[in-house]
Amino acid sequence: MSFHFSDAFAESLLLEDCPYGDLTTDALGIGGLSGRMSFYPRAPRCTVSGIALAAKILRKAGLACEELLEDGALAEGCPCLLQASGRASGLHSAWKIAQNVLEYMTGIATRTEELVANARKARPNIAVAVTRKNFPGAKRMCLAAATDGGASVHRAGLSESVLVFDRHTLFLDGEDKITALRERLPLMRAKAPEKRLVAEASTLEEASRLADIGLDAIQLDKFSLSDLAEACRLIRQTSPGTLVLAAGGINASNAYETALQGPDVLVTSWVYFGKPQDIRVAFERDA
Amino acid sequence: MSFHFSDAFAESLLLEDCPYGDLTTDALGIGGLSGRMSFYPRAPRCTVSGIALAAKILRKAGLACEELLEDGALAEGCPCLLQASGRASGLHSAWKIAQNVLEYMTGIATRTEELVANARKARPNIAVAVTRKNFPGAKRMCLAAATDGGASVHRAGLSESVLVFDRHTLFLDGEDKITALRERLPLMRAKAPEKRLVAEASTLEEASRLADIGLDAIQLDKFSLSDLAEACRLIRQTSPGTLVLAAGGINASNAYETALQGPDVLVTSWVYFGKPQDIRVAFERDA
Amino acid sequence: MSFHFSDAFAESLLLEDCPYGDLTTDALGIGGLSGRMSFYPRAPRCTVSGIALAAKILRKAGLACEELLEDGALAEGCPCLLQASGRASGLHSAWKIAQNVLEYMTGIATRTEELVANARKARPNIAVAVTRKNFPGAKRMCLAAATDGGASVHRAGLSESVLVFDRHTLFLDGEDKITALRERLPLMRAKAPEKRLVAEASTLEEASRLADIGLDAIQLDKFSLSDLAEACRLIRQTSPGTLVLAAGGINASNAYETALQGPDVLVTSWVYFGKPQDIRVAFERDA
Amino acid sequence: MSFHFSDAFAESLLLEDCPYGDLTTDALGIGGLSGRMSFYPRAPRCTVSGIALAAKILRKAGLACEELLEDGALAEGCPCLLQASGRASGLHSAWKIAQNVLEYMTGIATRTEELVANARKARPNIAVAVTRKNFPGAKRMCLAAATDGGASVHRAGLSESVLVFDRHTLFLDGEDKITALRERLPLMRAKAPEKRLVAEASTLEEASRLADIGLDAIQLDKFSLSDLAEACRLIRQTSPGTLVLAAGGINASNAYETALQGPDVLVTSWVYFGKPQDIRVAFERDA
Amino acid sequence: MSFHFSDAFAESLLLEDCPYGDLTTDALGIGGLSGRMSFYPRAPRCTVSGIALAAKILRKAGLACEELLEDGALAEGCPCLLQASGRASGLHSAWKIAQNVLEYMTGIATRTEELVANARKARPNIAVAVTRKNFPGAKRMCLAAATDGGASVHRAGLSESVLVFDRHTLFLDGEDKITALRERLPLMRAKAPEKRLVAEASTLEEASRLADIGLDAIQLDKFSLSDLAEACRLIRQTSPGTLVLAAGGINASNAYETALQGPDVLVTSWVYFGKPQDIRVAFERDA
Amino acid sequence: MSFHFSDAFAESLLLEDCPYGDLTTDALGIGGLSGRMSFYPRAPRCTVSGIALAAKILRKAGLACEELLEDGALAEGCPCLLQASGRASGLHSAWKIAQNVLEYMTGIATRTEELVANARKARPNIAVAVTRKNFPGAKRMCLAAATDGGASVHRAGLSESVLVFDRHTLFLDGEDKITALRERLPLMRAKAPEKRLVAEASTLEEASRLADIGLDAIQLDKFSLSDLAEACRLIRQTSPGTLVLAAGGINASNAYETALQGPDVLVTSWVYFGKPQDIRVAFERDA
Repeated sequence: MSFHFSDAFAESLLLEDCPYGDLTTDALGIGGLSGRMSFYPRAPRCTVSGIALAAKILRKAGLACEELLEDGALAEGCPCLLQASGRASGLHSAWKIAQNVLEYMTGIATRTEELVANARKARPNIAVAVTRKNFPGAKRMCLAAATDGGASVHRAGLSESVLVFDRHTLFLDGEDKITALRERLPLMRAKAPEKRLVAEASTLEEASRLADIGLDAIQLDKFSLSDLAEACRLIRQTSPGTLVLAAGGINASNAYETALQGPDVLVTSWVYFGKPQDIRVAFERDA
Repeated sequence: MSFHFSDAFAESLLLEDCPYGDLTTDALGIGGLSGRMSFYPRAPRCTVSGIALAAKILRKAGLACEELLEDGALAEGCPCLLQASGRASGLHSAWKIAQNVLEYMTGIATRTEELVANARKARPNIAVAVTRKNFPGAKRMCLAAATDGGASVHRAGLSESVLVFDRHTLFLDGEDKITALRERLPLMRAKAPEKRLVAEASTLEEASRLADIGLDAIQLDKFSLSDLAEACRLIRQTSPGTLVLAAGGINASNAYETALQGPDVLVTSWVYFGKPQDIRVAFERDA
Repeated sequence: MSFHFSDAFAESLLLEDCPYGDLTTDALGIGGLSGRMSFYPRAPRCTVSGIALAAKILRKAGLACEELLEDGALAEGCPCLLQASGRASGLHSAWKIAQNVLEYMTGIATRTEELVANARKARPNIAVAVTRKNFPGAKRMCLAAATDGGASVHRAGLSESVLVFDRHTLFLDGEDKITALRERLPLMRAKAPEKRLVAEASTLEEASRLADIGLDAIQLDKFSLSDLAEACRLIRQTSPGTLVLAAGGINASNAYETALQGPDVLVTSWVYFGKPQDIRVAFERDA
Repeated sequence: MSFHFSDAFAESLLLEDCPYGDLTTDALGIGGLSGRMSFYPRAPRCTVSGIALAAKILRKAGLACEELLEDGALAEGCPCLLQASGRASGLHSAWKIAQNVLEYMTGIATRTEELVANARKARPNIAVAVTRKNFPGAKRMCLAAATDGGASVHRAGLSESVLVFDRHTLFLDGEDKITALRERLPLMRAKAPEKRLVAEASTLEEASRLADIGLDAIQLDKFSLSDLAEACRLIRQTSPGTLVLAAGGINASNAYETALQGPDVLVTSWVYFGKPQDIRVAFERDA
Repeated sequence: MSFHFSDAFAESLLLEDCPYGDLTTDALGIGGLSGRMSFYPRAPRCTVSGIALAAKILRKAGLACEELLEDGALAEGCPCLLQASGRASGLHSAWKIAQNVLEYMTGIATRTEELVANARKARPNIAVAVTRKNFPGAKRMCLAAATDGGASVHRAGLSESVLVFDRHTLFLDGEDKITALRERLPLMRAKAPEKRLVAEASTLEEASRLADIGLDAIQLDKFSLSDLAEACRLIRQTSPGTLVLAAGGINASNAYETALQGPDVLVTSWVYFGKPQDIRVAFERDA
Repeated sequence: MSFHFSDAFAESLLLEDCPYGDLTTDALGIGGLSGRMSFYPRAPRCTVSGIALAAKILRKAGLACEELLEDGALAEGCPCLLQASGRASGLHSAWKIAQNVLEYMTGIATRTEELVANARKARPNIAVAVTRKNFPGAKRMCLAAATDGGASVHRAGLSESVLVFDRHTLFLDGEDKITALRERLPLMRAKAPEKRLVAEASTLEEASRLADIGLDAIQLDKFSLSDLAEACRLIRQTSPGTLVLAAGGINASNAYETALQGPDVLVTSWVYFGKPQDIRVAFERDA
């Protein structure tokens, strides 16, 4: 799935980088010459993302542009992803911002694909969902790239899912917060009838008790592998239809082992961090 | 230096995360209760950034808010950075986005401060400047955090500095691009009289030839340590007033050794990548 | 639940109505005098909405403002909802737009509350959910008002829930679209692991067959009362955990009877239509 | 007359409904298939509006689009209004929002056309003007639709016309507000020389006295039919060039009788309320 | 009358000038010190404008701010208009943009006041109206300043008044465009019942013929003084109630003589051009 | 160099002038006819600017549009600059705003070109740079036009250059502000390593002392011609590499003499003021 990015957003990126003209190209007096630039990943294998957005940016800069792969495709052997041609003024004004979009988004998509692949070696139907812990101001790009890499969106925000943390139950009356939560479940069903009700557990004991109260899903936060396995077993036993989410520190290296313990979904923020994918930009001047 | 972030930007972050209300808080029926939340770094030492922006977000959510440190300060011993109090509905709607701002920005500021400190052990007056390779859509936050960490901005964009790459000289006529560039310098001075003229060199030979043509600064891209040392020596000898910038792969680990070779400025993108700083959020319920 | 409306949105409403000053107040030369205005519903009973937003608008116009009820409250006996005081220029520039916000939103909230109350007479735990068929450009206000009236949001948009129409299954191969859909369910679970899977049925036969394939919810569109009852019975029998939604033409008049037939959720657009609630605005001039 | 709607507005509607991709289409894996959708009114007769805006939305979703009628046209016999073709991902992401725009705007245009037609049966040259009481945030769509239906805009806002209410004269000194207003008229002419000066009367006596003071138009608010007739007669007698506006509760049912009493303009908000026009959307899959 | 400027607009001006921090203040390390700045006109007499907007900008920069005059006031003897106090970082980030707002707006207001005063020496009740020929992107500031100087707005845009040029009548059929226009007048009254109908004449003969067809106003474009006098006489004779507007090249120097010829309104763009008013900014450092 | 203006900006100008349709064209019923309009400068010689932006506006209004000159070109003999064809509704909705853009921008470009030409008669390599004192809200258009006329941008804002005024040194400790500044220079180099350090002098004595402390450039504000000559001499002698900027009251009339005194750059705001260039718009109706 690739998200829709608006023309206005694409052009705002261009303008933020070049608000008052491109001084270098102009000072050199080369803006009117024409050429082309081509974008290639340097890694032999990556999952591309940001091609449609980069193409929008390039077109806003007055360039003709050809998209050679679709977002979400696996690029093997360093193929050309995107090509733009036109005046040097356009090429230089869009070069870095288009490259930046491709590098950051392809980086996220590639890390996501790796994490998903590793998890599915252990458990073929497991899903990977990405959190709200993305770069503020860059949320849609982060989520788009992660879904291009094969993840789903855990929560796009606070308005679309119900996820109870201990910071919520703190405000419930009574010593025993899980009992208090159980008492609120009918109210919650009435208020959010079409949503799954999810709560987070931080310990094996909490997980075990939450399994009992009628939630649709339980999120296990920062469990050790053995506790995760035990919690999955307990929840499955008590409440077979309940979805089990594992969250906290999951990355490509530990995805396989984590998945092996039995959760239905791995919830992760790791894919947002790390280096952008290296994308080479080749320039040619028209004869 | 801390940048100015607008009220409209702060509120847009809040709304992007919570466009149609906070479903969980509402379904639990706890929105009207009151409490407070406090933000603490988990690391014993970090350079904080994003406090002023997070405080704007918290206030837009209807909370009273106290800023306990200034952006750019060194936080030692995990002190409280920021405290907000008010209704649970406000606390929960702003919690994660305020935390996210603090974590990403403090992460960048802390990495920057480490890189700067390491470089200055080798060369006390060396400067560190951060590039345009920041997350598209999050540019101002990235630059703000890096300057809070002690860096300067290498280029905010294409409109404010002149930096010639081989992708520019490609469009100059003649076999010898450096000679062609030299011939354009008077035109460039006329077009951009108040700017420094800078060009990038990729090899020792290019650096040596560029030293000769009257630039104000030369950027050395991905030089080995020995080539960097030699290039610095050559440029200083030929053209003593020329600023020498070293770029390409510079990070906290190699900053000391790179600085030792003699450049005036280290140019880096490394601080933008990597994990957000871990910030703990403690909730309390009012009695 | 009341949604958050930004300062920028509140001020944009004010400016759209008064882009180049208030000609009448100015031509009369009365702008500098001071007074107050108070907002009262004319109906003896309504569910108020839009108070927080109207107050933001009034404050942006430079007025002091007191909110006397909370959004979502039942106003009985025509109490004062909101009071603003300040210069006549401010009172007149904000009067109609504040009134308009209150009237439209309170109208929606009141119709919603009536529909919900009627439905719950038949079935105390039934939920009412409002659709995406709200006024384009006024979506957040429509949803805010409906939730103030006791509804939940059926779908805020396409990114947060899975709802299969025949316009989707048209694109599945094979004569039998329901079988084709059944075959896609595992893919759908993998792509959207945390979402409920919902499909719409237009006939009793479709409903009966959909009950069999493992969906989380079935939406029954424009069923007669007897078909609705039969479909509820069939689905409950075949698939006890499946949520049953009734949609199509549901309003305050038929909510009771519809609810009697057994669905879990009534899905409606009706609350968006109809007249704004009549809100009287009383002006006083300061002595 | 059809208003201009910007690309940015059209795309914002699309994005508001589909911020993070279309989950259903994607989960089904059908986004890459192609088809077409066609929009037809269900009523045998309506006045269409929103076609140009819906077409902009459809094109922003990547679809080819043909507009088969112009905004403001009378559609008889349920003709196709608009057709869009392309990928299923585009069709599904734009379907409902394009339909919504057409339904709301065509609803308003059709109600307007009916009201205008009824009024003109009584008085062929009478005009119908729509008020500022439109849905906040949807003002331009409401006004565009009403003008497509044959109305004019009574006041787009406070900056373009002078209309004195008793909430204004309250701030004039003196017991007799109409005398006070008369004394201000020269000042008003000087401040707004190119505008008509208009005041509202709530009683026959007020109307009669206002007819005397030199206004360009008098708005009669919520007059009974007989008072309206008498007021028209009085004003015409006293001040033949004065325009008479009738306002308050005017709708398609009472427009004929109201017009019969003699006013020049009927001022109404009624067209904004009521159900959207029902527009059927037919999907076809490409072979 | 002073227009409303939004917080978002005020802050956008600040940010446009200072997107990534104030480099000079920061490099000097003086941002944390505190002081005050005061704004004084240098001319002994001017009509002030922009004070409310400048104050919004200063407050957005974190300064305390006192407005000492109201927009539209006559400032005699170089009084302090506005004073702001706070940190040097705030003072320096807002200084020039606040000064710029005051200088441009006060310049326009002062030129307007002079033109109005001169015209009224000849004809005490004459009005001055300003055109749409203001700086694109700065329209609201231009109109606000002109109304602060005593002008009215001729046309804020195309949606609020009817003004027929020969570029319109060109599209009417028939050799004689004025006859063709006369035939359209009933249609125009029906379409825009509450608006004055205005047409422009370029020659005395056109003016004379237009006087005959029932317009509400006639705009005389670039008439010589004698033709203007004759046209006023002719129009008054033929059609006493018709408003006469004189447009084209009117400025403070010729306003007296132009007004003497008898028009009701002078229409001008001249006030927009010319130098900003000189405003001195005095800084003080807190002890 | 011509700056990039976004589609959204072009369309916002169109909409600001025509928010609710073009009343005149519509009331005349001519919107559906077709024709063309052509833009010609009235002066025999001017430097054009705003063509690309005007063309964007015209296209957004649905017109076909041909650009016959490039921004920055010298137009001699009143050639056609731009031609647009399509429906009268489009022609009339875009006419004035496109003309306005061309007139203001061409006015600035032409004044700039004249100032530059005069200055270069005295000193062929002298540069002209334009200040931040442009119309608030119209900054990008002002800078674009000035660069089209041959100027460079002195400072686009506070974030990209270091320029010390006495309002800065006021905050430095010590009686002697120039000594205090000298002591801060190393800190300034560290904070802004890639920027030139510039300070302003108001007297010959200040200029002389500033020449000594190691700045990269000195800006001489409002110097008499003789003081300017002497200051240039002194600075060149003391500090040969230091750039000398002359600012304050420089315009086309005094540019020659000012340039003769020896500065490297003339800094001016004068080009922003003055009348828009007169652009004639010829309409033709299609047969």
